[in-house]
Amino acid sequence: VPRVGTTQKSEEALEEAITALLPTEKSPLFKVAHSHFSQFGKLLRGRTAWAVSEAVTLSPACAQNWAVSIELMHNASLVHDDICDRDEHRRHHSTVFSSFGTPLAICFGDWLVARSFEAAYRATSQAPSAEARAAVPLLASSMINLSEGQAAEFTGKPILTWEAYDQVVAKKTIPLILTSITGPLLLAGADRYLPPAERASHAAGLAFQMANDMLDVLGQDGSAAAFNDLRRRAPNAVTVSFRSQLLNSNKAAFDAWMATPADDDIQPWVEQMLETSALEICTARLQEQLNICRQECDVLPVQIQSALTPLVTYLEHATTSVRARATDTARICV
Amino acid sequence: VPRVGTTQKSEEALEEAITALLPTEKSPLFKVAHSHFSQFGKLLRGRTAWAVSEAVTLSPACAQNWAVSIELMHNASLVHDDICDRDEHRRHHSTVFSSFGTPLAICFGDWLVARSFEAAYRATSQAPSAEARAAVPLLASSMINLSEGQAAEFTGKPILTWEAYDQVVAKKTIPLILTSITGPLLLAGADRYLPPAERASHAAGLAFQMANDMLDVLGQDGSAAAFNDLRRRAPNAVTVSFRSQLLNSNKAAFDAWMATPADDDIQPWVEQMLETSALEICTARLQEQLNICRQECDVLPVQIQSALTPLVTYLEHATTSVRARATDTARICV
Repeated sequence: VPRVGTTQKSEEALEEAITALLPTEKSPLFKVAHSHFSQFGKLLRGRTAWAVSEAVTLSPACAQNWAVSIELMHNASLVHDDICDRDEHRRHHSTVFSSFGTPLAICFGDWLVARSFEAAYRATSQAPSAEARAAVPLLASSMINLSEGQAAEFTGKPILTWEAYDQVVAKKTIPLILTSITGPLLLAGADRYLPPAERASHAAGLAFQMANDMLDVLGQDGSAAAFNDLRRRAPNAVTVSFRSQLLNSNKAAFDAWMATPADDDIQPWVEQMLETSALEICTARLQEQLNICRQECDVLPVQIQSALTPLVTYLEHATTSVRARATDTARICV
Repeated sequence: VPRVGTTQKSEEALEEAITALLPTEKSPLFKVAHSHFSQFGKLLRGRTAWAVSEAVTLSPACAQNWAVSIELMHNASLVHDDICDRDEHRRHHSTVFSSFGTPLAICFGDWLVARSFEAAYRATSQAPSAEARAAVPLLASSMINLSEGQAAEFTGKPILTWEAYDQVVAKKTIPLILTSITGPLLLAGADRYLPPAERASHAAGLAFQMANDMLDVLGQDGSAAAFNDLRRRAPNAVTVSFRSQLLNSNKAAFDAWMATPADDDIQPWVEQMLETSALEICTARLQEQLNICRQECDVLPVQIQSALTPLVTYLEHATTSVRARATDTARICV
């Protein structure tokens, strides 16, 4: 019960802190910003950052600034990615790209990045150790990974193997989850916990992305339709899992189809996909990463362990819900 | 002669430093980055930053990192602005937007921003004073201004008055010129020079933008055609100057035309514009800002004054060249 209380408190405080720094009515970004933040999303990265900060006894101001910084960077990447992917819906709401057009979505994403670095700087100046300064380049390096990971979707080949999939996730998903956990450790000078925290973040990031991918397939991710990733030939764990089950000529046919431009008819592949155990394989892999995450957490002080509870709980719920839906979907289709 | 030597040295060193940190062949941004930096542009902001850093005796490493940071942020804003403005040519070369498309241009701009903050952080850790840290939020605040200034072009009314024009320039052009001059002062702890340096930067920024605007009108700015700004109804000093000369019904007709979507026939207005003294008024205003800049520089130590020579010389040359061309253009048209 106290855990839920803390989590809820930090969620409200985070929403308030972000709202407080949004552009005022005079700014050309006022409408865009308030439309985007009419839905805050899960705030999972920010809440995790806040909880880890409290666990290592950073000041409330420092904790809040780092959490805000991570959430702003995450939202910047969403706003820019939605332009790249031409996504019109997120959080059951129109995207900035779709409501306000590409130019304002670019400007608002840039604005969020700048505010993110400002908040990160404030966190470092409120931290107890001089080494805390290294949190600024940590944030920058996450952003480098995010931009390269997103760029790979427009230059690289489609993602067909687990090896390629893990590389994409290491660029696109893990960095900000990692930074929300290792950032506060760095700010507090608690460097000795970094190696297990990094391994736990890596596993949590992989599990998180696989859960999201399954929600995309099941049409539960706030975008318009199921199989949005498959339609765009975007990286998705279920796609990789499905492909790993295909044999010879059928695998070659699928690879050829994946290499064609988007907006083709996905139905034949969707039907095949739902007949295989692609979703089950994914849930098993998700479970595996969740176990690794828990195992790595075991060596961390109990305060840090419980700080990771919101994230781990989310992943557990997602796994359970996804597994139930996957079974339902399979039952309907068979 | 030694001044030219230093300037040339810092130009080459800057190009090398930027090239050294570009993505390697494995990166999805390799081609984009090398295509963009096949032309470095004038490097005016970076060279100014470097020269001011030397004037206040920052270490070469610190000077270089701050100069690189400013140039990367400037290039990020160019890459993103070209998407917003759908500009296909810059520096007599295809833009990233036009050669590689919107998604890669967004990702590359983001990558440049992240690298810019990394370089700024390195500069602060190589600076002598602890207050040097404030250079990171200085860079962030420039970026906030740049993004809001760019956004205003897509939400606001067309820029018709000098007051509105000065506000746009204060957001879009002055911040990075200011940061290239005040950043090194902050890094060196030379805070007492900040007020006159800020006023000099403000005047230099206004002069710089007016010179650019006249080059747009004269078709000498590396974009495809003359009057590109007028075609897009984008802010331009010559447009404002022209409008200030119009009377009653003709002014109302021009305002109405400026409020219509772009791609209209600009020829009738271009002809009127060249018949007025719009260009001459602009050169006079440019000269005025140049004088203010020189005046403010007078109270600065002589080392800082000569550090601003590349920038002031550029503005002087631009003024002379623009004035000559304006006279030619007027002669042809009359």
